[in-house]
Amino acid sequence: MSDEKYTVGVDFGTLSGRALVVRVRDGHELASAEHSYEHGVITESLPGSAVRLPSLWALQAPSDYVDVLRTAVPEAIATAGIDPADVIGIGTDFTACTMVPVRRDGTPLCELAEFADRPHAYAKLWRHHSPQPQADRINTVAAQRGESWLPRYGGLISSEWEFAKALEILDEDPQVYHAMDHFTEAADWIVWQLCGTYVRNACSAGYKGIRQDGRYPSREFLTEVRPGFGDFVTEKLDHPIGRLGERAGSLTAEAAQWTGLPPGIPVAVGNVDAHVTVAAADALESGQLVAIMGTSTCHVMNSNVLREVPGMCGVVDGGISDGSWGYEAGQSGVGDIFGWFVDNCVPESYHVEARRRGLSLHGHLTELAARQHAGQHGLVALDWHSGNRSVLVDHELSGVMIGQTLETTCVDMYRALLEATAFGTRMIVETFVDNGVPVHELVVAGGLLKNHLLMQIYADAVGLPLSVVPSTQAPALGAAIHAAAAAGVFSDVRVAAAQMGRRTRDAYTPIPENAKAYDRLYREYVAAYEWFGRGNDMMRRLRRIGSPETVGAAS
Amino acid sequence: MSDEKYTVGVDFGTLSGRALVVRVRDGHELASAEHSYEHGVITESLPGSAVRLPSLWALQAPSDYVDVLRTAVPEAIATAGIDPADVIGIGTDFTACTMVPVRRDGTPLCELAEFADRPHAYAKLWRHHSPQPQADRINTVAAQRGESWLPRYGGLISSEWEFAKALEILDEDPQVYHAMDHFTEAADWIVWQLCGTYVRNACSAGYKGIRQDGRYPSREFLTEVRPGFGDFVTEKLDHPIGRLGERAGSLTAEAAQWTGLPPGIPVAVGNVDAHVTVAAADALESGQLVAIMGTSTCHVMNSNVLREVPGMCGVVDGGISDGSWGYEAGQSGVGDIFGWFVDNCVPESYHVEARRRGLSLHGHLTELAARQHAGQHGLVALDWHSGNRSVLVDHELSGVMIGQTLETTCVDMYRALLEATAFGTRMIVETFVDNGVPVHELVVAGGLLKNHLLMQIYADAVGLPLSVVPSTQAPALGAAIHAAAAAGVFSDVRVAAAQMGRRTRDAYTPIPENAKAYDRLYREYVAAYEWFGRGNDMMRRLRRIGSPETVGAAS
Repeated sequence: MSDEKYTVGVDFGTLSGRALVVRVRDGHELASAEHSYEHGVITESLPGSAVRLPSLWALQAPSDYVDVLRTAVPEAIATAGIDPADVIGIGTDFTACTMVPVRRDGTPLCELAEFADRPHAYAKLWRHHSPQPQADRINTVAAQRGESWLPRYGGLISSEWEFAKALEILDEDPQVYHAMDHFTEAADWIVWQLCGTYVRNACSAGYKGIRQDGRYPSREFLTEVRPGFGDFVTEKLDHPIGRLGERAGSLTAEAAQWTGLPPGIPVAVGNVDAHVTVAAADALESGQLVAIMGTSTCHVMNSNVLREVPGMCGVVDGGISDGSWGYEAGQSGVGDIFGWFVDNCVPESYHVEARRRGLSLHGHLTELAARQHAGQHGLVALDWHSGNRSVLVDHELSGVMIGQTLETTCVDMYRALLEATAFGTRMIVETFVDNGVPVHELVVAGGLLKNHLLMQIYADAVGLPLSVVPSTQAPALGAAIHAAAAAGVFSDVRVAAAQMGRRTRDAYTPIPENAKAYDRLYREYVAAYEWFGRGNDMMRRLRRIGSPETVGAAS
Repeated sequence: MSDEKYTVGVDFGTLSGRALVVRVRDGHELASAEHSYEHGVITESLPGSAVRLPSLWALQAPSDYVDVLRTAVPEAIATAGIDPADVIGIGTDFTACTMVPVRRDGTPLCELAEFADRPHAYAKLWRHHSPQPQADRINTVAAQRGESWLPRYGGLISSEWEFAKALEILDEDPQVYHAMDHFTEAADWIVWQLCGTYVRNACSAGYKGIRQDGRYPSREFLTEVRPGFGDFVTEKLDHPIGRLGERAGSLTAEAAQWTGLPPGIPVAVGNVDAHVTVAAADALESGQLVAIMGTSTCHVMNSNVLREVPGMCGVVDGGISDGSWGYEAGQSGVGDIFGWFVDNCVPESYHVEARRRGLSLHGHLTELAARQHAGQHGLVALDWHSGNRSVLVDHELSGVMIGQTLETTCVDMYRALLEATAFGTRMIVETFVDNGVPVHELVVAGGLLKNHLLMQIYADAVGLPLSVVPSTQAPALGAAIHAAAAAGVFSDVRVAAAQMGRRTRDAYTPIPENAKAYDRLYREYVAAYEWFGRGNDMMRRLRRIGSPETVGAAS
């Protein structure tokens, strides 16, 4: 043992979990280790079974999560070269909404022999999208009844969330539904495995579990959605709430054995990967909008005001940190649009040249695009290739490219797509501001940080100074910060984040002439946004024309 | 000499001239020969001179045209293996509006030593686009004065046409302007070289020379456009008109020596490449719309009614054949849009696969696109990458692609562009019909005929039976038909075309289920067409944003 103390943050992603060892004194990251889930994302058939899964399904095996504790945590400690006895707490974060149906003792139903071949007994990953019909019913009934919580979610509940996923089980496999004692967030399930105590974290419960003002949707509402669903909250969902940064319990002897950490150390309340990043960025003040930019972008921000902002994903009391209103918004396609473009729209000569220069296509195109001045290409695009989450909440929208001429190059179009996503963020920022929720600073974390042109475009197009989170393991760092707060080293997460989190302020600031050009270009983006997003149903109709049903109906 | 008689048609294109030997009895094509212009299109500097040309300039050397007579004609005759004495007439067609400033004897000014280094003394090719300011002045004054001829040209005179090109000379090199005795269409100049007689053909004079109801724009109008321009018509333009299919004169001894043809044989009045194709297609009846499809598409059609149709290029009495109203419309980008896409938007893997299969990229993409059913890709595009000629007459418009998702492939987008040009043709057809000019049949000629998928899409999307012109030298065949009429073998071009021209009727007919899907998709095309083309100025603004002036003005 030494005087130096450490916490461990474990970030559970879609394909793997990563453990990070962090020095409590200053947030220095000593070492990390990654463990890929043995079963990955289960989309075709159940493990060791011939049972085939329908389309849109995405399951996981909860035992894979425990394997991360067994392997990645000890490996990170070993690589860090520290004495495990100096670790004073552990925190976690998870994808959301990922749900595990369990028995009263926490055993996942899929681990019981009788349910091993039942798809609904497995963990349903956040992107298990088949319960759209269930989400539609929930939304219809909620709108008809004028449920007060609906506007807190921008007017729509997602098929990804707790109620849609549970209703799907009841609809399709009532036996599994009745056999499950708790329908738990994986974020809370993993904490349960660590400390033996089931605590629902305030973040998931709020954003994904429709918990508002201390209440869930009523029995009457649920019964109207489906007879037999009325007791879902009381029987399977409701459970004591843990505030973020609180201690959920103490590391059990078994979990201490898995991880190699001292038994009895504090285990922090669970958290969600995007939201926990705010602590890593030390950006918990009102108006600091944190954008976690990867294949998609999640925007999270604390505010001291409560407003109903159209098209946001949700606003939750203490959803990011205790004592603030936590807002969440999102762009459903960002990095995956750039990836699609590179895979589908770049001619051979650019591939050849990129290889010759030893660059990725992204790197090559970005370097060429950086030589242009703002607006030079004469294009404007809509970044809706994966639909639009905020602020239109319409997954049937699609992408648009406007302004092509015979001189337009793939570099022009690539840059136009980078800009389109920046305008998408600006639209979200302006929607917050226009609805009385101020935004002062744009803080970026995530994989897209490495594209410096993209970052400058965001600063120029949004018109805000842009801070960046230097950690490449920001969620795990955020979890480690929560662990330090839970351990009582700091009075709360805010103080812990100030000491252990960090961001580079003003890493990019708007260049005035670019900002002016982008002000003009953004007006065109908004005009196209309104016309395609609110002015008509063209994009929905385009999806129907030529679909088998339409062709059948026409002939 | 034999009993079999022949005519020769010579088609003068942008880069070369092609001579075709045709049997009068049945229009059988015996042989053709091509001669590329030595000076091609002069865009950088004058031949043998350091004089640099401004941007948008496109000149030619008229001596190159005569070289076609000297080389391609004898070569075609030799290849055909006929006795030249059996050739009973020669006809020509030309790009338009291509203008040659000449002395009273027909000598081009550029062939005089004193003007050899003066750019304005050369032939100005149809796509010499620098006189846009002159066209703008002509259009402004015409609109202000309410000139009666303006609606005959869809409301706008082009920078390509006679008056704009002449005014540019007066504005920029008055000495050349005053030295020229005639400003001649190259179509008429080449006939002058063949028969020693200067005759203005009714087609060029009408479509490009603003000759309507036997009159040109008035002296008062021209003076208002520019002082000193008032006498342009009387001094340099007006000249006896030859009807199409008439004999302009007889082959001179000199021209007989160039061509190896018998002196004294009839030389037909000049013609324009698109318009002469109607004879090759034997499609001179009212309502047969002939589309000559290549990099761009020209639509020409005879009608027995005179209407002012918005956005057409022009309507001319006897402009296609004597006794009918000849309509012309156009799509400024067709094949060049497909070419742009293949050059700029197709990923490496498709290049590799096309090479493996020994196909061109166009061929490979077309084959893959043909496997889709109509509307399957969920896309709709606007085919304005080169602007829009008919019916919006706006070269500042640009292309749009709507409906992209992360599943969209380059095959989807390629097919969407094929369809977009078909919808562009449907829009032209519907505009004719809606304005009281019936269209009964769509007849296609030109290089794009070879794409069978494209042809089927046109039949399905336009909803008309589609005939095709089998000749690969349709303009030259049309010119040979005019030669036969001029030689008096037939009473007029109509009769000559019935005997010598041909088209395959109903080569493609609409497939009902495709037509229904395209009816739906066309409604989306129209909605986008209206919004981008008439609803707002977005595309013009996109061209300005980021232009050096705008950036300068902004900062």
